Amino acid sequence: MDIPYKTYLTESEVPEAWYNVRADMKVKPSPLLNPCTLKPVTAEEASHIFCDELVKQEMDDTTPWFPIPKEIRDFYRMFRPSPLIRAYFLERALGTPAKIYYKFEGNNTSGSHKLNSAIAQAYYAKEQGLKGVTTETGAGQWGTALSMACAFFGLDCKVYMVKCSYEQKPFRREVMRTYGAQVTPSPSMLTEVGRRINEEHPGTTGSLGCAISEAVEDAVTHEGYRYVLGSVLAQVLLHQSIIGLEAKAAMGKLGVKPDVIIGCAGGGSNLGGLIAPFMGEKLRGERDYRFVAVEPASCPSLTRGRYAYDFCDTGKVCPLQKMYTLGCDFIPSANHAGGLRYHGMSATLSELYAQGLMEAKSVKQTDVFEAATLFARTEGTLPAPESSHAIRAAIDEALECKRTGEAKTILFGLTGTGYFDLKAYESYNNGTMGDYIPTDADLEASFAKLPKVG
Amino acid sequence: MDIPYKTYLTESEVPEAWYNVRADMKVKPSPLLNPCTLKPVTAEEASHIFCDELVKQEMDDTTPWFPIPKEIRDFYRMFRPSPLIRAYFLERALGTPAKIYYKFEGNNTSGSHKLNSAIAQAYYAKEQGLKGVTTETGAGQWGTALSMACAFFGLDCKVYMVKCSYEQKPFRREVMRTYGAQVTPSPSMLTEVGRRINEEHPGTTGSLGCAISEAVEDAVTHEGYRYVLGSVLAQVLLHQSIIGLEAKAAMGKLGVKPDVIIGCAGGGSNLGGLIAPFMGEKLRGERDYRFVAVEPASCPSLTRGRYAYDFCDTGKVCPLQKMYTLGCDFIPSANHAGGLRYHGMSATLSELYAQGLMEAKSVKQTDVFEAATLFARTEGTLPAPESSHAIRAAIDEALECKRTGEAKTILFGLTGTGYFDLKAYESYNNGTMGDYIPTDADLEASFAKLPKVG
Repeated sequence: MDIPYKTYLTESEVPEAWYNVRADMKVKPSPLLNPCTLKPVTAEEASHIFCDELVKQEMDDTTPWFPIPKEIRDFYRMFRPSPLIRAYFLERALGTPAKIYYKFEGNNTSGSHKLNSAIAQAYYAKEQGLKGVTTETGAGQWGTALSMACAFFGLDCKVYMVKCSYEQKPFRREVMRTYGAQVTPSPSMLTEVGRRINEEHPGTTGSLGCAISEAVEDAVTHEGYRYVLGSVLAQVLLHQSIIGLEAKAAMGKLGVKPDVIIGCAGGGSNLGGLIAPFMGEKLRGERDYRFVAVEPASCPSLTRGRYAYDFCDTGKVCPLQKMYTLGCDFIPSANHAGGLRYHGMSATLSELYAQGLMEAKSVKQTDVFEAATLFARTEGTLPAPESSHAIRAAIDEALECKRTGEAKTILFGLTGTGYFDLKAYESYNNGTMGDYIPTDADLEASFAKLPKVG
Repeated sequence: MDIPYKTYLTESEVPEAWYNVRADMKVKPSPLLNPCTLKPVTAEEASHIFCDELVKQEMDDTTPWFPIPKEIRDFYRMFRPSPLIRAYFLERALGTPAKIYYKFEGNNTSGSHKLNSAIAQAYYAKEQGLKGVTTETGAGQWGTALSMACAFFGLDCKVYMVKCSYEQKPFRREVMRTYGAQVTPSPSMLTEVGRRINEEHPGTTGSLGCAISEAVEDAVTHEGYRYVLGSVLAQVLLHQSIIGLEAKAAMGKLGVKPDVIIGCAGGGSNLGGLIAPFMGEKLRGERDYRFVAVEPASCPSLTRGRYAYDFCDTGKVCPLQKMYTLGCDFIPSANHAGGLRYHGMSATLSELYAQGLMEAKSVKQTDVFEAATLFARTEGTLPAPESSHAIRAAIDEALECKRTGEAKTILFGLTGTGYFDLKAYESYNNGTMGDYIPTDADLEASFAKLPKVG
């Protein structure tokens, strides 16, 4: 074992700027459209909802590097650099000649990479002199990360949590409350949209789309508040580039280069962050890599979706984005990988995929949990169901190497831990987990409702 | 910030031997006694319960260093070296001149330091050619750790889980099952002692002492099984010395020395491991340190117990040990810090305390959660309730420094994370948490039942 099991950068080696992959793209992602005018969203329009500095980051597709403010780098020291791990024990269990590395982002209380962007967004809100931020959360990872970030800067944090999750995941709720967040089950009676939905659908357990609408209304109707979002947006991919930058620097220290880079893809925040600097090399013609996005067969936006303008939210109050989408009315079947249930995909990743610069594959849930269990028992860490999609694909790649005798170097993103997903593990352990795959007819019905734009 | 926020040893700096503090004690801990004969347990007797190699370690109070087998060091690479963290953000929040460091053992799926000994014990069981091991678990940390270790070596793992924890912590149960363990609530109807306790105390929610009795009975009545224990024993303190050895090496790299070293104390595994090499220096007259054991006011074995021979388990099937004890029949009131509910204390730590080489204090649960919440909001990590006892004492020490102006260097052990303790946080967040302190009469009644030995 010449290569250490874990590689940490020293504090002085940690990147001091985020990388904006759009700067190196010849064909840029299409702009966001205002849902009323269907014209590109202006900075002025966006600044009613988002913090000013984040609007700038969102709209800037030419500046390659954004310095990371010192206050954010200070906070990053609590959980960054994250380790780059050589999966020796998994390799041994598979009997593969492949060399498997993973970048582990779960060593923090939010349990995932979401904290990388949460602290950045909280910081800019604080800098702007705001009182607080609002957001929605489904599975709860983003809400937890944002609560931690707001606690650090003394910002007010209002989280609208989809009512069924609020009731089914009381532990996530309590973590957020421990960090001082105000957690409200959605739909609530605190907003007009919430009251209307409660009136029209008595007893509803809510939806992410509804929670987004409530969080946005709360932000725009209260002085000193803005809305923040944990995935999909270009600003989020920018902040998450810290994952790929650290991974690249650590591999550089070891003198190795990945042949293939694999990440799970829901809204795209982790995958976009992990591949960013490697994709930059590819875009600039400096080096070639294979990139693989892995999505659940139950919610296959890249592999079976349409590349079209669509609403970012089910409630159709948010801007439209050109992306691979299953249609904003598409509701995936019950699927334990909560973080991968989004109907669309980051516009940046969508454009890279459309240009053939990235591959995508979908995997079935039971196959994902089989991989997760093998990973837990060999590498120790209990992985998040979302992350386990990448594990599945990495294992399949390594088994293919075993067949061909190739000793490829594989890098994948282990975005988080599964400590709050034990209901899903329980159903896998009990043999009651199913696979849910939409039919072509389901998807066609959904595509038929796509907005007619451009 | 000249001192990094986190300090990791390199893999080559990680200790390759455990340190046995008993070797440097002039007055040794008293030997274990056979519960039938009341004579010192022989190696032959002990080997019916424990693995042979672990019996040797248990009985050896003269050899200072035990080389760590390569297979164990390989496994340690998954989660060791653990970071030594300078609590800059907590210091700032307290406005203290004290310098606070903590050794964080929670960055692994078991969520605590217990894995350090679990993998060692599983290794020796495997080496002896056993089929499997049995054990008890309270909060679930030890059971999780042992499940992970057994999965790694392909050993069968049977866990008796204290019933109140089994019911409060279903997720802990599922983690263990994911790693392949068989988990049974204790007292169960699977063992004679379990059936007896259920009959004598109908509706009991169990205790560690009772679960120990069940696990031991299971081991001695099944061919190819041995019992393993996660705390209290000298062998466990030996394995846990890795914590202190790494902490000492990391502080050495930074050129700092702690003035006071603080650890929570249930059975003593974390505290004993953390202080071991520092205590060695003190015992050899090389340097003085203050050591502080922190226990819950609800289960105050050191601060209010008797130093006497007592049974290690409620069922009175295990050997007797001379230790600070509340009496093996003492059942602490409902107390969310499950890992600190043990009626006794490591014999080694008891003897060090009796000799005046270590201090002890007890803290109230609500004060502990106040400290835990402050820690979470400043340092990011949501701490385990057990660990938060040490946080409380470290904060009190730092606030005393603020009063006096002293810039003491404080080191404490952050043994684990609180991700599975959110029921307790919920009751604290809701203001419904109470403090449970036994009366003198309660304790006198329990002391009256102590066995008459020697």
